[in-house]
Amino acid sequence: MSDTLQTAVVGVTGYAGAELARLLLHHPRLQNTPPVFAGRVDSNGSSGDASRNSIPLAEIHPQLAGGHTANLKLESFSWELLASRGVQILFLATPHEQSRTWVPEALARGLQVIDLSGAWRLTEAANRAIYNFEDEGTKLAAETQSQAVYGLPELHREQIANASLVANPGCYATSIILALRPLVAAGIVDLNHGIVADSKSGVSGAGKAPTAKTHFMYAADNLSAYGVFTHRHTGELLEQIGIDQSQIVFTPHLLPIPRGILSTIYAHFGGVQTAESISSIYHDFFAHSPMVRLFDKSLPQIQYSVRTNYADIGFQLAPDGRRAVIVSCLDNLLKGAASQAVQNLNIMQSWHEAEGLE
Amino acid sequence: MSDTLQTAVVGVTGYAGAELARLLLHHPRLQNTPPVFAGRVDSNGSSGDASRNSIPLAEIHPQLAGGHTANLKLESFSWELLASRGVQILFLATPHEQSRTWVPEALARGLQVIDLSGAWRLTEAANRAIYNFEDEGTKLAAETQSQAVYGLPELHREQIANASLVANPGCYATSIILALRPLVAAGIVDLNHGIVADSKSGVSGAGKAPTAKTHFMYAADNLSAYGVFTHRHTGELLEQIGIDQSQIVFTPHLLPIPRGILSTIYAHFGGVQTAESISSIYHDFFAHSPMVRLFDKSLPQIQYSVRTNYADIGFQLAPDGRRAVIVSCLDNLLKGAASQAVQNLNIMQSWHEAEGLE
Amino acid sequence: MSDTLQTAVVGVTGYAGAELARLLLHHPRLQNTPPVFAGRVDSNGSSGDASRNSIPLAEIHPQLAGGHTANLKLESFSWELLASRGVQILFLATPHEQSRTWVPEALARGLQVIDLSGAWRLTEAANRAIYNFEDEGTKLAAETQSQAVYGLPELHREQIANASLVANPGCYATSIILALRPLVAAGIVDLNHGIVADSKSGVSGAGKAPTAKTHFMYAADNLSAYGVFTHRHTGELLEQIGIDQSQIVFTPHLLPIPRGILSTIYAHFGGVQTAESISSIYHDFFAHSPMVRLFDKSLPQIQYSVRTNYADIGFQLAPDGRRAVIVSCLDNLLKGAASQAVQNLNIMQSWHEAEGLE
Amino acid sequence: MSDTLQTAVVGVTGYAGAELARLLLHHPRLQNTPPVFAGRVDSNGSSGDASRNSIPLAEIHPQLAGGHTANLKLESFSWELLASRGVQILFLATPHEQSRTWVPEALARGLQVIDLSGAWRLTEAANRAIYNFEDEGTKLAAETQSQAVYGLPELHREQIANASLVANPGCYATSIILALRPLVAAGIVDLNHGIVADSKSGVSGAGKAPTAKTHFMYAADNLSAYGVFTHRHTGELLEQIGIDQSQIVFTPHLLPIPRGILSTIYAHFGGVQTAESISSIYHDFFAHSPMVRLFDKSLPQIQYSVRTNYADIGFQLAPDGRRAVIVSCLDNLLKGAASQAVQNLNIMQSWHEAEGLE
Repeated sequence: MSDTLQTAVVGVTGYAGAELARLLLHHPRLQNTPPVFAGRVDSNGSSGDASRNSIPLAEIHPQLAGGHTANLKLESFSWELLASRGVQILFLATPHEQSRTWVPEALARGLQVIDLSGAWRLTEAANRAIYNFEDEGTKLAAETQSQAVYGLPELHREQIANASLVANPGCYATSIILALRPLVAAGIVDLNHGIVADSKSGVSGAGKAPTAKTHFMYAADNLSAYGVFTHRHTGELLEQIGIDQSQIVFTPHLLPIPRGILSTIYAHFGGVQTAESISSIYHDFFAHSPMVRLFDKSLPQIQYSVRTNYADIGFQLAPDGRRAVIVSCLDNLLKGAASQAVQNLNIMQSWHEAEGLE
Repeated sequence: MSDTLQTAVVGVTGYAGAELARLLLHHPRLQNTPPVFAGRVDSNGSSGDASRNSIPLAEIHPQLAGGHTANLKLESFSWELLASRGVQILFLATPHEQSRTWVPEALARGLQVIDLSGAWRLTEAANRAIYNFEDEGTKLAAETQSQAVYGLPELHREQIANASLVANPGCYATSIILALRPLVAAGIVDLNHGIVADSKSGVSGAGKAPTAKTHFMYAADNLSAYGVFTHRHTGELLEQIGIDQSQIVFTPHLLPIPRGILSTIYAHFGGVQTAESISSIYHDFFAHSPMVRLFDKSLPQIQYSVRTNYADIGFQLAPDGRRAVIVSCLDNLLKGAASQAVQNLNIMQSWHEAEGLE
Repeated sequence: MSDTLQTAVVGVTGYAGAELARLLLHHPRLQNTPPVFAGRVDSNGSSGDASRNSIPLAEIHPQLAGGHTANLKLESFSWELLASRGVQILFLATPHEQSRTWVPEALARGLQVIDLSGAWRLTEAANRAIYNFEDEGTKLAAETQSQAVYGLPELHREQIANASLVANPGCYATSIILALRPLVAAGIVDLNHGIVADSKSGVSGAGKAPTAKTHFMYAADNLSAYGVFTHRHTGELLEQIGIDQSQIVFTPHLLPIPRGILSTIYAHFGGVQTAESISSIYHDFFAHSPMVRLFDKSLPQIQYSVRTNYADIGFQLAPDGRRAVIVSCLDNLLKGAASQAVQNLNIMQSWHEAEGLE
Repeated sequence: MSDTLQTAVVGVTGYAGAELARLLLHHPRLQNTPPVFAGRVDSNGSSGDASRNSIPLAEIHPQLAGGHTANLKLESFSWELLASRGVQILFLATPHEQSRTWVPEALARGLQVIDLSGAWRLTEAANRAIYNFEDEGTKLAAETQSQAVYGLPELHREQIANASLVANPGCYATSIILALRPLVAAGIVDLNHGIVADSKSGVSGAGKAPTAKTHFMYAADNLSAYGVFTHRHTGELLEQIGIDQSQIVFTPHLLPIPRGILSTIYAHFGGVQTAESISSIYHDFFAHSPMVRLFDKSLPQIQYSVRTNYADIGFQLAPDGRRAVIVSCLDNLLKGAASQAVQNLNIMQSWHEAEGLE
């Protein structure tokens, strides 16, 4: 039964992995069976030690120390470890190359997988091309991809409920798709005019590896655009919103803050809209979506959604009723990664979608 | 002769005023005649003292202390003070309401004025409406406005040279106009498609008054859009780029950094362009503009232009050649305010445009 | 019985008040009876509206919106409101002047009070002098003070359990007392040598009112010392550590971060100590204190304790064994304010001390 | 003659090197002969290119582009390059290991050297031990060290004037020595009581290499102590202040800001002092030191000295007159490195000490 569900997390040393660990450890349904944390036991860099086969989690993430988490450990990954502990659901917070290899193996071993990487999000080969997957074109890859469900609950709740492989969406993609899909689905957006999605993300989105771009001196007191016309999340936008490349420009920027995404989205409408007509499209679309908060009188800001599990959406209509600026915010490590993964877990287990997330 | 030009600055207690003071104090042509700094002698807030008629500048801006600036003072403003000191050029770094009152008086007294506020930038009454000027519609206001030249040297160098009143541009407006005017003037932008200018500014742009929005806890670790479809700089964009309201959406955002603006601008072209064709339009337009730096191989970032007097412009063309993302950066207190004012001074005095600015 | 305990919070619009609201709303023992939030219904500044007698909490703190907190309101304060709702425990997150007036009234009405201000923390009149309390010297003030227990659970657990008035400690004071009291109580500190407590706090410690010092442009990219030899928390240090003014220097600094305190404390020992001897003093002292985390192999940092309810303590011994640097960290809004208040509530109710805090 | 002095800088790709380049390029005495910038032409990391033997400086530091610096290049280092260009003064902004090797070679070739590293600052072998210099104990090292002058102009102006090798001080050391040496030299400090120097530095002090500790996610919203009882600058404190290890504790901290150091220093006096007596000691000591600013009525802050070439010193005396808190601020890349190097250059050339620095 559900209260004994055994989960495992690989990649708990990264930022999203740490948040996922925290959420699962506090999840009401998992109090009896804390997750198995598996990985390379030297994952923590300097404190790695080849003679050990486990590391206290609090050594990797000192902020997690204390209380009932005090004795948790990162254990050395092996398929045997997962089998011996009776793991049923596997979360992968790993680089996409690793997920390409491990997911087919996990499925073959009968595990259900929620993969936080970009490995299995894209249906179209053309959109996948930018990843240069080594196994692209193989039968195994095609079969695995065919089992994958894009894990955005607000769009694919039913398929997620029955999925063996959930491809958890990208953080930028989540913020933009949630803001645009309702309007495009309602048929009011003039796609020939071209949509603009100008997104800004905190530095945790760039990962934990120290690089020239994650150096404090590069990111602090700065703002920079990157990946213009080439960002990997673009394919997710096209497939999930249902538009083609000529109909959107997406520009990510690196913000001098630890976490949070704000996307400013510009759309033209075919006819004249009112604030009420737009608002009711959003309210209808998200009527049963507890993790989306709609702002009717003001615009969301990054500080409202950071460290929450919500996506926040608001908009401002032009006086001519033919254009709108839509602002969409979320925490890139939560609704953009870890809490969305838990939301998917809840749906797969037929628990309340927001359980452990409010 | 020019080496004895007497300038005065009102509003030196604000952020742009402090930068203007610094630039004028180091200007090679003004070494013999430091500016008169005039204002309310209690301008510094808590350290104000009604019994004094001057305040050491270093008390207001401790970072300016030391060296030959050690003995400079903020003196109590009066027209008599300016007359007695033989002031010829008056810089106003004052709120626009004050500039509306003082500029006509200064012109009547034979002073040349460089006004950093929004008081005299807009030719069209419709665009001025948002300011609700008290004297709107009066003969004096109309006459004063007719003398004003929009102080963007890269567009209006010749008129500035002969102006008695220069209306120094807004910081957002400078960043957007410099990026768009060359392309629009070249006739390649498809205006029916709609331009998007998504701008982000550091907190100094919000002024020195402590408010809920300039509180560290509001601005830090945050990003917020504001003034959507209603920002005062919109009128400058329309008049100077030569477009109408339906052809652009401009959204400013508050960045958690002290200073700097980055505008990400999205344009569609009527035909297919190449990186070379776009680049040559910019290089031609700015061939004689020393304060604009063009980025051909990369995009500018806020950190490159902050604390410089330059505007930086770069772009990325879409693979289809029909769309571009243009990135424009500057320091809102320098090329967006104080150094642009000095550039205008240089032009008015027939000095080299970049004197004291490199 | 305890699961129907009715609490009330006054001052929920401030930073500590918001954290207190969040903690109480998630407290396992208070799920059936959410707190009454009382205050001025125009507390939110611009959105205040005299015609209303309540404000949605989510309007004041948008980050709290969503889930079961969606319908909570800030209600107009009156003693009648508290009585009609059967309030038993009153939290005051109010300025100390207000707490001086309200606490006696609340006690007279039979309420138990946990006061987060500095109003009732100090036993010695000499130490209170800096506050200039208007009612200093009155019989009512003396009687009220005599009922107050200093709410640092790690020192006064037993008295707190039976208190009607708990004076919740200052944030700086908590960080320093927890680090020093164990060593001083063990008799190893050479007090004639003089202790130094060099503390650094995030800006939330300066309160929500916009001032010159909380302006982003003042605090960002800066560090400043303030209140040298004059800070109000000094009295708490003297009384709780058990030393006199000549034996300590305490210097607070304003850090350019939203929250968190780090105190670096310097002590000389009468004899030669070892890392083990110091460590065992701390472990013994805090053996039954779940909200203190001891660092034996490394030093705590602000990022480890921020957004946790813990105080973190570590130290480094000099090679000569006669001096130590002790580093103490906590979140000024949590263990330095709101979560310490909840810890006191737990003790007063004979619940587990860490309930709702892990 | 002096206006044709040829300088060279090695290590211009680092933070201090970039500031040094900027200062030398604007130095009034060097306008005819810009420095030679020498180094590894692939110094810029990813943009390195083995087929090139020079890199435009603006490619490494885009903020330096524009104006007369537009054509400057980083050239491939060799002794022949320096000889062929007639270099007389060599600045080394290199790691200390490299300076240990290059300085003797440069001296042998008749160059005067200003070394910004820690290679030659320490007279006592015991203090040097922490560096583990490979050539420690060799005759060449001893001879080189014997030529070195500690380049703190406020203490060693006369020796610097005649030096062939100036060992530019550490940034922390500069901030602490300038604050303490005047008081210790005056004989008023009770050294048996123990001095505390609690220092805080911006991230640029940690260098340009991306590491776990310079990652934005580590440094931002954080504060951490490090190097407690083990920091390399301790030896400079002991030798220059004239005290021994038992008489001071020095603790550096990493601040979440790009640049700037604030040292909070605690001293006990043998007798009772007044604010006037302390102030006059400082004013006498720094009477002829243009790069030190004394604060008599308030305390310095990091924002006052950042991006200036000054060291700022202020203090607060305890009411008992027997203890003081001294606050010392400077920009770690300027008075803590590059501008101090230029100040030393000025002294070596018999130019005004502050030339090019105000």
